[in-house]
Amino acid sequence: MVPHLVTALTGPINELEQRILESTPVIERWFRLEWMEHTPPFYSSVDVRNAGFKLAPVDTNLYPGGWNHLTPEMIPLAVQAAMAAIEKICPEAKNLLLIPEKHTRNSFYLQNVQRLVQIFTLAGLNVRLGSLDEAITEPTRLELADGGALTIEPLVRSKRRLGLKDFDPCTILLNNDLSAGIPKVLENLHEQYLLPPLHAGWAVRRKTNHFQAYEEVAKKFAKLLGMDPWLINPMFARCGEVDFSDGTGSECLMSNAEALLGKIRRKYKEYGINEKPFVVVKADNGTGGMGILTVRDAREIDNLSAKTKAHMAVTQGGQAVHEVIIQEGVLTNERINSAVAEPVVYMMDRYVVGGFYRVHADRGVDENLNAPGSSYVPLAFEQSAQLPQPGVKPGASVPNRFYMYGVIGRLAMLAASYELEATDPDAEVYE
Amino acid sequence: MVPHLVTALTGPINELEQRILESTPVIERWFRLEWMEHTPPFYSSVDVRNAGFKLAPVDTNLYPGGWNHLTPEMIPLAVQAAMAAIEKICPEAKNLLLIPEKHTRNSFYLQNVQRLVQIFTLAGLNVRLGSLDEAITEPTRLELADGGALTIEPLVRSKRRLGLKDFDPCTILLNNDLSAGIPKVLENLHEQYLLPPLHAGWAVRRKTNHFQAYEEVAKKFAKLLGMDPWLINPMFARCGEVDFSDGTGSECLMSNAEALLGKIRRKYKEYGINEKPFVVVKADNGTGGMGILTVRDAREIDNLSAKTKAHMAVTQGGQAVHEVIIQEGVLTNERINSAVAEPVVYMMDRYVVGGFYRVHADRGVDENLNAPGSSYVPLAFEQSAQLPQPGVKPGASVPNRFYMYGVIGRLAMLAASYELEATDPDAEVYE
Repeated sequence: MVPHLVTALTGPINELEQRILESTPVIERWFRLEWMEHTPPFYSSVDVRNAGFKLAPVDTNLYPGGWNHLTPEMIPLAVQAAMAAIEKICPEAKNLLLIPEKHTRNSFYLQNVQRLVQIFTLAGLNVRLGSLDEAITEPTRLELADGGALTIEPLVRSKRRLGLKDFDPCTILLNNDLSAGIPKVLENLHEQYLLPPLHAGWAVRRKTNHFQAYEEVAKKFAKLLGMDPWLINPMFARCGEVDFSDGTGSECLMSNAEALLGKIRRKYKEYGINEKPFVVVKADNGTGGMGILTVRDAREIDNLSAKTKAHMAVTQGGQAVHEVIIQEGVLTNERINSAVAEPVVYMMDRYVVGGFYRVHADRGVDENLNAPGSSYVPLAFEQSAQLPQPGVKPGASVPNRFYMYGVIGRLAMLAASYELEATDPDAEVYE
Repeated sequence: MVPHLVTALTGPINELEQRILESTPVIERWFRLEWMEHTPPFYSSVDVRNAGFKLAPVDTNLYPGGWNHLTPEMIPLAVQAAMAAIEKICPEAKNLLLIPEKHTRNSFYLQNVQRLVQIFTLAGLNVRLGSLDEAITEPTRLELADGGALTIEPLVRSKRRLGLKDFDPCTILLNNDLSAGIPKVLENLHEQYLLPPLHAGWAVRRKTNHFQAYEEVAKKFAKLLGMDPWLINPMFARCGEVDFSDGTGSECLMSNAEALLGKIRRKYKEYGINEKPFVVVKADNGTGGMGILTVRDAREIDNLSAKTKAHMAVTQGGQAVHEVIIQEGVLTNERINSAVAEPVVYMMDRYVVGGFYRVHADRGVDENLNAPGSSYVPLAFEQSAQLPQPGVKPGASVPNRFYMYGVIGRLAMLAASYELEATDPDAEVYE
């Protein structure tokens, strides 16, 4: 049984929902035209926060895990979208090499890998798993909780190609975000499709580039719908030379946090929102929930505990943090039973294929829910994001809400393609 | 509750199922390569007959009705496939004009139209309905059984474009098979996409062209899998100058039926099939179940009753029948409770989006189930055709069976694209 979900049913978000529903043909056409100019990421997931008065993406993952949390009903959509993606990239493909994260003892993560293998196998590919872990020197069987098993194999690199023993793939798909840096074995592969491209990995990628691209997308979209882009756009600032361990850059952090809090305060005043503004400070690269700080008063930054400083100083990949994003905090006003929930939208190619709620009973409305080490309850969207029901009262329809989340998820995905184009080291420059 | 379905669980069809499942990556890649060379029909449905020893398409509909019989779970797949189709044909499209059949008092048919409107609206288009019925001179509201309504409007034709009052579509989609001939209002539209093209309508299309193309497709596919194409291909012959009312051409019919029955008999002997061969005689153009004759002995053709002759002499569209296809009869060995059932596979663009069983309690295993005037029970496929389960015992898995039906449906769809290319009056000929 799926527990009852209380979505944020009042406030400006219902107007936004109504406007989005009324504008479905305009929105879908706009996306079609954008996708003529820009290539969508191969796959992505977007964390969305719904504050009731504002709805915004807060994290766009280009190496999404958690595919196992989608309902069985969503798998055919993912398979169909994967077919569409493969058709465009490499229609002659027979073989797909999937490279997962190294932490192959995490049975939850392995279920995600199993699901991805299933999706691409059903889309008509021979799928095998290769490991970046040098400890894997022979085909290794990994047992799954459901009684199944996966086999992960050592990579075999030749001068120009990457594969496995007796397995030469057309496409190499990473489900490893490269937080620990770009492995040599992935460099200089020009004959095969390496997806996502290396500069999408956290070794190179920066959240500020993403949110800058998102701001551009949000402005275009807001213009299309005749609305204030702030309703879907989290403001942000950046500090480039920070060291939490010795206090370097704390002035930059404080002044930027102060300025951003002021901007949020003015926006709250404009919309009559009676909430306390906050900002979130996190590493500009890296994923997961390491090193995330909620700040309501800039002076807090000067008084961090030793524990917090240590926590903030390194990413989950173990890299020192020097570049930092200060992002407008977006409350989440969705609840499942009494636990705080935030929707996560899953996309394959340009299509929304499903999503789930990340639910956390012990966290507050202004906290990060993707907390490492702490569990969350995935709650699969019960209904498809592709079944909005025009004419139903705003806020009263779960499919309509999911359609809106799917639109915001796609805006963030579009921003990721702008971002990857702008940061592509191999981009041809036309002058 | 879905009644229990007894599929044909024994015999060569299980070997075929197993071979198809084992060959999924090969099959999907082969389809991808075929779709690089050939354009799939915009949408289609294929009637499939599963004899247990043979599995073959018997009718490929390029103006499929019955979309209302798909389960709600299948709609997102149809929406996603419609998005993919629109992206390729006319990404800048805002408006879609849908032209349904004239029989707008048939509430079952209207439910189909309503479902198509829903699918294309959700895919992001403004959808309106235009009528070929000259009695529709103003916007007319048609009530639906579920309390909803559709509005159908008179067509507005300018010199170069077709639309409605204040509605200029990029794409015109026919859900009318043009059995009654090509209406003038649809001719010479070169600025808009008219889908399917006019030569896909029964005014021009011939079943024998389709099954000739299907034979070519079946041979290629059988070669790919190393199997006898007969296992998926219904043999056929043609008589071009027939008049049932005065007996013209009955010699052609008899000699062809005799020869075809002989060929089937030899195949049955080769495979040790202990069934009585039969052939089906029907109009080479036209759809629906009008004028379909089951023949077990060629001499029956010489002794048709006056009623049968009258029945065979005209198509459902009221056109005189002069061209006739004589097709190998394929038994259907599927049952729901004790009623005979045949699967119908629905496709949008290149994707299988769902299907249902046409069930008929009063018909035999060698009879046409798409009988006019008599009811049938649509039984939606419970599970997606995109979720085969490799490793499961052949015949034991409903998803595997549906995957196989989806492959056969796509072979017939591919044959339809070969057919439409070969019969395109505007085709450029490269010499």
